[in-house]
Amino acid sequence: MSDLAGTGLNTTLDTVKFDANGLVPAVVQDAKDGQVLMVAYMNREAWRHTLETGLATYWSTSRNSLWVKGETSGHTQRVHDVFVDCDADAVLLRVEQVGGVACHEGYASCFHRRVEGDAWRVIAPRLETPSAG
Amino acid sequence: MSDLAGTGLNTTLDTVKFDANGLVPAVVQDAKDGQVLMVAYMNREAWRHTLETGLATYWSTSRNSLWVKGETSGHTQRVHDVFVDCDADAVLLRVEQVGGVACHEGYASCFHRRVEGDAWRVIAPRLETPSAG
Repeated sequence: MSDLAGTGLNTTLDTVKFDANGLVPAVVQDAKDGQVLMVAYMNREAWRHTLETGLATYWSTSRNSLWVKGETSGHTQRVHDVFVDCDADAVLLRVEQVGGVACHEGYASCFHRRVEGDAWRVIAPRLETPSAG
Repeated sequence: MSDLAGTGLNTTLDTVKFDANGLVPAVVQDAKDGQVLMVAYMNREAWRHTLETGLATYWSTSRNSLWVKGETSGHTQRVHDVFVDCDADAVLLRVEQVGGVACHEGYASCFHRRVEGDAWRVIAPRLETPSAG
């Protein structure tokens, strides 16, 4: 369990500005090397679950359900630090990415395609076969 | 001018999934040290302007206008690399932050408040007096 577990549940939750759909974007960064791993969305329930358990938890906008990242794949994210931006409408999680693979397509980061000329080019190795994430 | 200037305008723009409001969230990361500086939103016009000029350009959701970051403050962002995530519904810009201050409140990063216990704590020095950004 993270040393964040159980903290920050009241005052901090009231600060965050959830949008009209009750969501706030969360940028997820590897605490070890600073790599940006993914962007997901949190609602109040996901926020609470993240701080209560120390495991990064989002709201899946495709499945419309709480999504404990890595619950099925084992690629959980242990939360080291939670930041909010100046307008309180975006959050940043610094995490330990268990297994080293954040992307359901098997890459370390979901941001593995870069603009090169007029095309996207995959610039990172695929570490695993695609999974349910 | 960035070496990205003028590139990636057609195929890449067609790939990005803009939401119902025509926007996509953009995570902005310092290319030098990996610090996450801010989250902003881009529409098609902002995307084109970013790739045409090499200067990070967003859509200001508060002013409802194109926002060339740093146009008034001088704190422009020279774009080194542009990434898209696996679902193509978020982008990542790696930039050189001119002046070293991304946040209009005078901090290097907009993410300068961290959860500590039941409160937010400012964990970075204010480098400048607040500006219009």
